[in-house]
Amino acid sequence: MSALRFYSFGPHKIPESQVFYRSKFCLGLVNLKPITSGHVLVITKRVVPRMRDLTEEEAEDMMISAQKVGRVVEKFFKGTSLTMTIQDGPQAGQTVPHVHMHVIPRIKGDWANNDDIYDALDSKKGVDNDERKPRTTEEMKQEADQLSIFFDQYKEE
Amino acid sequence: MSALRFYSFGPHKIPESQVFYRSKFCLGLVNLKPITSGHVLVITKRVVPRMRDLTEEEAEDMMISAQKVGRVVEKFFKGTSLTMTIQDGPQAGQTVPHVHMHVIPRIKGDWANNDDIYDALDSKKGVDNDERKPRTTEEMKQEADQLSIFFDQYKEE
Repeated sequence: MSALRFYSFGPHKIPESQVFYRSKFCLGLVNLKPITSGHVLVITKRVVPRMRDLTEEEAEDMMISAQKVGRVVEKFFKGTSLTMTIQDGPQAGQTVPHVHMHVIPRIKGDWANNDDIYDALDSKKGVDNDERKPRTTEEMKQEADQLSIFFDQYKEE
Repeated sequence: MSALRFYSFGPHKIPESQVFYRSKFCLGLVNLKPITSGHVLVITKRVVPRMRDLTEEEAEDMMISAQKVGRVVEKFFKGTSLTMTIQDGPQAGQTVPHVHMHVIPRIKGDWANNDDIYDALDSKKGVDNDERKPRTTEEMKQEADQLSIFFDQYKEE
């Protein structure tokens, strides 16, 4: 049995099983506490807190990655739009000091007001709210596996 | 006197005086109804509605532009973080069908909860709310002029 491989997301260790996308500089991760189906993260491989810390190549790769991941999760989760947001620094609501973009498929009527989705991203109410039950490792692995397959299929279209 | 030059932002015509940043594929614009000081937009020059419509070069340029514009507005408006968000499609709250990223300097305590800022971006409450008084062309020109200068200075540091 081979050793488990982990990636860093700020101080957190992310098992390889939760990664469904890899580019030269970025990763696509499923979420421990997604605010809706298909809420995933695009992070840089390098652990740096702010957008301004990225090299040009990393910043470019992040947007291309977000574009690719967005297409896949929107299609897979039957969305019709995407919310793509970077909380770049603690005063913008960033809780993990590692550059990451939330990519979230949207469907008509998913939130009463379109931008109420951000309440769910709020650290006090949403993603890092202790009252939200985290998913199991197995649930996260399943979603990542499903997305990986879909991603590969989709690339070949 | 030369003819005024306009850029397209969806169906809207944006006078050159409101543009403070230009790259190969993108523009930086000041806002008609900013939700806070320094709330600006990075848009593609080409009028397309969705992120998936962008070429790789355009997507890459958009992120590099957002990174550069973010550094400038954060410094100029004395922010300590940035909110960077793309409402990619109508179900994500996009009201102008033209790819654009909101880049917003953030300061501790600017909103009671960090993510309440998105309420202000909500089309019903914020940017396109008819009760919000639009700025005058002169006010917008002044801000764009200030930012342009700062941008040029900053580039040379």
